[in-house]
Amino acid sequence: MPDDAPVAVVTLCDFVANALGSHGVPRNEAATVAGLMVEADVYGYSTHGVFRLRQYLARLAGGGCNPTPDIKVVHETVATAVVDCDDGLGHLAMAAARDLAVKKAREAGIGWVGVRRGNHAGPLALYVRPQAEAGMLGMAAAVGSANHVPPYGGTDLLLGTNPIAFSAPAAGADPFVFDMATTVAAMGKIKTLRQQGKDMPEGWMVGRDGKPLTDPGRRSEGFLLPIGGPKGFGLSVAIGLMAGVLNGAAFGSDVVDFTNDTTSPTNTGQFVMALDPAAFGLGDDFAAKAARIFDNMRASRPLPGHDPVRMPGDGKSALAEAHRSGGVPLNPALRRDLNALADDCGLAPLFPNAPAD
Amino acid sequence: MPDDAPVAVVTLCDFVANALGSHGVPRNEAATVAGLMVEADVYGYSTHGVFRLRQYLARLAGGGCNPTPDIKVVHETVATAVVDCDDGLGHLAMAAARDLAVKKAREAGIGWVGVRRGNHAGPLALYVRPQAEAGMLGMAAAVGSANHVPPYGGTDLLLGTNPIAFSAPAAGADPFVFDMATTVAAMGKIKTLRQQGKDMPEGWMVGRDGKPLTDPGRRSEGFLLPIGGPKGFGLSVAIGLMAGVLNGAAFGSDVVDFTNDTTSPTNTGQFVMALDPAAFGLGDDFAAKAARIFDNMRASRPLPGHDPVRMPGDGKSALAEAHRSGGVPLNPALRRDLNALADDCGLAPLFPNAPAD
Repeated sequence: MPDDAPVAVVTLCDFVANALGSHGVPRNEAATVAGLMVEADVYGYSTHGVFRLRQYLARLAGGGCNPTPDIKVVHETVATAVVDCDDGLGHLAMAAARDLAVKKAREAGIGWVGVRRGNHAGPLALYVRPQAEAGMLGMAAAVGSANHVPPYGGTDLLLGTNPIAFSAPAAGADPFVFDMATTVAAMGKIKTLRQQGKDMPEGWMVGRDGKPLTDPGRRSEGFLLPIGGPKGFGLSVAIGLMAGVLNGAAFGSDVVDFTNDTTSPTNTGQFVMALDPAAFGLGDDFAAKAARIFDNMRASRPLPGHDPVRMPGDGKSALAEAHRSGGVPLNPALRRDLNALADDCGLAPLFPNAPAD
Repeated sequence: MPDDAPVAVVTLCDFVANALGSHGVPRNEAATVAGLMVEADVYGYSTHGVFRLRQYLARLAGGGCNPTPDIKVVHETVATAVVDCDDGLGHLAMAAARDLAVKKAREAGIGWVGVRRGNHAGPLALYVRPQAEAGMLGMAAAVGSANHVPPYGGTDLLLGTNPIAFSAPAAGADPFVFDMATTVAAMGKIKTLRQQGKDMPEGWMVGRDGKPLTDPGRRSEGFLLPIGGPKGFGLSVAIGLMAGVLNGAAFGSDVVDFTNDTTSPTNTGQFVMALDPAAFGLGDDFAAKAARIFDNMRASRPLPGHDPVRMPGDGKSALAEAHRSGGVPLNPALRRDLNALADDCGLAPLFPNAPAD
């Protein structure tokens, strides 16, 4: 294939699984994580998909991430649980937490499953979309994998981007799937701009002097701004308490920067929730009611200069289908990076004709 | 007492309860609602406390709010429930939902209780602070009681301020209590500015032309802006789905403006959640761990020109104690309004020497 063509999902999954396997991850677990990483790209979350392979391999090589974890439930009630990820790849514990939350919701109306001793697990959308596809509402949140944000009005980096995601079924092409960082911008987007040689808009970051910072290469000199000032700060702390402290995971100064430190366990904390409308007297009615409300919103006359209103998740099903049938597009910088990783892992390059980095 | 002195809590509770009683609310229920309304002022949520008495009385008089509701649980699992408020005062169902969520959390690790056919219930902080005081984490959210916000990029008012609140225990003077609207400003604050004859800052509202709106008297000509643009919009929709649609309550174009319409049931939806750290392997440890993290954040060197870092909820315990022992301060406009309501209700005025409106 030409080196700028989209890459078939199965090809990309095999490559990522083999790369993880070369770092000691057993075949089944490598396939699970690779599948989720590629699924992130399939749904268009390109900052949180295969782009992260370099970081994950570095932490496996450095010893901060355990290639052969013993992942298990360490606390459990009919409606809650805590999954200990044993410092393994975060996707493994989060996928288990998600499936367990759905199972508990079927029995108890709600399932809330926390993760401790986890790692970066890609976009939270991976852990809420399946609830919506199963007719349930989903929620998930995580303590960010590095501190880039000070407490509101302060200057010490004690908070991550602490993302939160929600989902719900809706009749029609797309369920509601909404995944946000509690900062104006996510670090993944800033890293992508840096890779592309572009500047950040003002308002994403400020320096320690309180002045705007727009060069993504200088991101370590400043900090990310929370949405809504003190509101984003409060929301981020609430997420840190529920996803971190409640699970016995890191929050605040205990958070390890998973990019700069490849040798220390991060003790990343997350949670996944599922709510079953059947327990609230609604079955499939929920999806029909949500669709009617969403259709009203989509039909709202746009503000001057704005595109038509879109609901979070709109277009994702079609995008995923196009990627599944036609392959996933990867930008040139990522292609070069994957070639370099292939070399490191002793694998054949995915893009033999791409120029070297 | 002089007419500008703070008002004793018991005096204010009696007055509000008598005013509600004059509109057909039975003695016990009137005392419960009055206690919660005054508690809002005690904790400094003055836009959501006694200030709202006029609205509540108008809806009781108009028939939109039922003075003698039959409030009951209509769906229930070990961990979830739906409370039907029967169009009664919202505080009654939300207090019941909160207490039931805490009870379920003790048994199942988590309790999640929704409300349908409710009404405005004051600040959500009332329904999360008790969880923290009981050693649990709390969350609550509501579909706003009027639509002031369009979907992102649109111009039709289909969303309310849809607030959300969180709480958690922390060793020391104050638990974590965080209560926010998903808009840059809450309508209650804008109404207070109007009462005080002040302008809004730019960024709180825009007109239908997309230009800033700063006159609180013209608030009906424009709309509130969500925090973080599309992020606040997505968060607001998620809250509408969980607090509204899931409970069979109104969301979107079904929402009734509870200020302008005093005759229609609003079918307001809310939910309250409680999480018990004991189910996650933490008991009192949670409060100690949270306090250590909060102390680190408070110690962060302030940005140039900023006050020291404060955590959400800081100072609330001392403020409440001061108000409980020394009385609640009420601004002159509210004093005049309460005098006018006393006249309407056939009660003795609280401030006999205040000038008439």
